[in-house]
Amino acid sequence: MRGSEVRELLKLLDQPDIISFAGGIPDPELFPRAAIARAFARVLGDPARAKAALQYAPSEGYLPLRQWLAGEMRARGVTGCSADNILVTNGSQQGLDFVGKLFIQAQDTILVPYPTFLGALQAFNAYEPEYDLLPGPDNNRTAASYLEPSRRRPKFGYCMPEFQNPTGTSLDLAERERLLDTADALNLPLIEDNAYEALRYEGRRVPSLLALAAERAGGIDLCKVIYCGTFSKSIVPGLRVGWIVAPRPVVEKLVLIKQASDLHTSGLNQIVMHEVASTILAAQTEAIRPIYQARRDAMLQALQAHMPAGVSWTRPEGGMFVWVDLPAAIDGAELLRRSIAEARVAFVSGSGFFPDRSGRHHIRLSFSLSPPARIEEGIRRLGRLLTEMVPARA
Amino acid sequence: MRGSEVRELLKLLDQPDIISFAGGIPDPELFPRAAIARAFARVLGDPARAKAALQYAPSEGYLPLRQWLAGEMRARGVTGCSADNILVTNGSQQGLDFVGKLFIQAQDTILVPYPTFLGALQAFNAYEPEYDLLPGPDNNRTAASYLEPSRRRPKFGYCMPEFQNPTGTSLDLAERERLLDTADALNLPLIEDNAYEALRYEGRRVPSLLALAAERAGGIDLCKVIYCGTFSKSIVPGLRVGWIVAPRPVVEKLVLIKQASDLHTSGLNQIVMHEVASTILAAQTEAIRPIYQARRDAMLQALQAHMPAGVSWTRPEGGMFVWVDLPAAIDGAELLRRSIAEARVAFVSGSGFFPDRSGRHHIRLSFSLSPPARIEEGIRRLGRLLTEMVPARA
Repeated sequence: MRGSEVRELLKLLDQPDIISFAGGIPDPELFPRAAIARAFARVLGDPARAKAALQYAPSEGYLPLRQWLAGEMRARGVTGCSADNILVTNGSQQGLDFVGKLFIQAQDTILVPYPTFLGALQAFNAYEPEYDLLPGPDNNRTAASYLEPSRRRPKFGYCMPEFQNPTGTSLDLAERERLLDTADALNLPLIEDNAYEALRYEGRRVPSLLALAAERAGGIDLCKVIYCGTFSKSIVPGLRVGWIVAPRPVVEKLVLIKQASDLHTSGLNQIVMHEVASTILAAQTEAIRPIYQARRDAMLQALQAHMPAGVSWTRPEGGMFVWVDLPAAIDGAELLRRSIAEARVAFVSGSGFFPDRSGRHHIRLSFSLSPPARIEEGIRRLGRLLTEMVPARA
Repeated sequence: MRGSEVRELLKLLDQPDIISFAGGIPDPELFPRAAIARAFARVLGDPARAKAALQYAPSEGYLPLRQWLAGEMRARGVTGCSADNILVTNGSQQGLDFVGKLFIQAQDTILVPYPTFLGALQAFNAYEPEYDLLPGPDNNRTAASYLEPSRRRPKFGYCMPEFQNPTGTSLDLAERERLLDTADALNLPLIEDNAYEALRYEGRRVPSLLALAAERAGGIDLCKVIYCGTFSKSIVPGLRVGWIVAPRPVVEKLVLIKQASDLHTSGLNQIVMHEVASTILAAQTEAIRPIYQARRDAMLQALQAHMPAGVSWTRPEGGMFVWVDLPAAIDGAELLRRSIAEARVAFVSGSGFFPDRSGRHHIRLSFSLSPPARIEEGIRRLGRLLTEMVPARA
């Protein structure tokens, strides 16, 4: 989806009769506004802290935040992670941009799942790569298939192993291990985008690719996984604070990229995010999870109740998205046009999530922004439209 | 200067007996802390505003801020400037990065003054350009000299026409017109970096290259100048709010680059900066100018009093820097080493400001951070060291 399409869609969402399953954005009703306001007041009310917070700051990020993040990563199984493995970024999107800037020369091949996160494609496209398919549970690509003499060695693989945007699906432990086997065989860096990590509603946590790779390699600084995290889904997006975790030599290069790109992420926002996250992150994620889970449940139940035969969908254990496979006769973009005009329901059609803009028979539904009753109503309307369309095309 | 050198220098500055003329950064004692704290409290205290400020936001920036900036630009002579000509960036550094991303393919030629702003070289270097000299008052380059068949047409010219970092010098009106003549003859985009604009201590304001080019072309959307501005020197750097002003078709491309790079600049910080700047920018710049002017005056007087024969320096009408030409026998980097060890005075040696790392017989002195008495003391010490060194090398 291009920027202009995004803006068109955003305009639509201002129309109150539209039920939107389009944006993959958190519900602002759930933002910890009071805690954030208190943290800003505390920092800005202390002259010495305020002067430091409002001045230029180190490119690698605010040290106490980096130390706290390193502790969080260790608690999630990334043994040996220290502040030196952390770069603070403007959300995880900037992490993806920096990875593109570090690794991609025009015409290099990089590997992604098909479909994959639209924002990652946008970030990487700036550096003009070619795309190929990342090995995964839906395909039978092996290391050997990337080593044919006619092909250029891929520069990195990118994926979102938990609650992927757009499919909502996750890689299980065996699938992660197989991906790491292939990466090891190819000496291939892997970019792990874990933007939705905080939003698990069921199932057991699986170690991150970074945790598994650090263990295999005998230390984080010896592995080849670069992890991108963010507070955008757990706390708020508007402070633009995310982070990269990587082997130290990679972080050192990324710090230079950060310096050249925008010097540093707002020091004030980093200090506030450190205060807020280190105080309330656990309680905040506990508070928002059941609310998003109820919305996921409402969407899955409504799909079951209202979708005609020939339509199938994923059953995500977390995140914000359900991915719908349409009958072959139905094009996602056309469905979107009719859905807005006739059913007053918005979503994102699938082809933008494919580097080759294939995948025309898919749509992405986000359940993050609407209460269950509205989700039920929107899916009911969409189901009615699809029921009309399916026999007409059969 | 590389990132590692910058960090070494920053470490030194923590040593209280060092007098630093190194960093080109504003004095945090002059930050309008109370006004900023009030603005954050107001926005975050209003639930509806807070929710919007903490949510994802449009890539082009906060509309009221863009509208206000357009008005400011019109007031500075950029006729017809509207919000559609403005993109909000994370400081002007991000504007430079985006210009590099938009225009430069590896091995393209771009034109800069020698010396030029280090941060611009760092931003552009990521895209692997070749450098050539921008036409200017210190050289006799003409349009024809760039049109030899063996040369590639330059992609853009970059300069800081007011109080240049590192020299402190400005282009007068005739020099700006000549630069625009050459650019017109080459159909060459010009990047105008006006980071220090607010800090004029004497002399008359000269119209910006953008204002002059828009008038020549019959409208901002028809000209080829891209202007980068920032609140970092006038208000504070720590909110990371700057802006680009450009013809609308260029802004549309830059908005897509912004979206792919980090989605948007913190909405909260933009809203706060709009409240603060639209309320106090004029008063704030009135308040800080005489303070920086007194420091410039102290530095120029001290140089006059303490420098040995054979040393010369610029006399800036504004900004934060004085550029010193050393006798040919003295290397700026060696002087820096000895100055830190023997005189306990820090500054930046000149070669980092040259794309070819020439200019070894220059140093940059910043007067922005120290009160006049400390400036006098630092220059006295530096003058004594230089006086020792000059005859020894003569």
